[in-house]
Amino acid sequence: MKVRILVSFKESVLDPQGQTVKHALHTLGYDFIKNVRQGKLFEIDLDGISEKELEKIIPEISDKVLTNPIIEKFTWERLDG
Amino acid sequence: MKVRILVSFKESVLDPQGQTVKHALHTLGYDFIKNVRQGKLFEIDLDGISEKELEKIIPEISDKVLTNPIIEKFTWERLDG
Repeated sequence: MKVRILVSFKESVLDPQGQTVKHALHTLGYDFIKNVRQGKLFEIDLDGISEKELEKIIPEISDKVLTNPIIEKFTWERLDG
Repeated sequence: MKVRILVSFKESVLDPQGQTVKHALHTLGYDFIKNVRQGKLFEIDLDGISEKELEKIIPEISDKVLTNPIIEKFTWERLDG
């Protein structure tokens, strides 16, 4: 099994990295870029668990390890069948 | 227009952050996790350009600003229509 987890700041949280990227792009002339939010990507291979366990485990490891649930949110998707 | 750009290390490049996350997960008992690769996520709002310009600009800003093309690769997708 392969899953992709996308982690980004909650809407209410400032994103200084994203702002820096936006300013860099404006400096280069890409001033039609209105907003940039930066986040994290995890691609994880798992083996030997059921579909049902997967549904339980991904939120669990996201909350415990991959995100700071106070300021970040996540979405995930299967990359294989 | 809203696009999502996913940046990750090329397959041949070591990913120490991903390895660290994997080891942390194993320590917590998630030993069915076989591999973790960590990357970056950008969500970008753009305005006032055509479809065709978008197709040209996303690879351009990815190469110039968002990635280090020597060690990283990117994929992107539209988040709206």
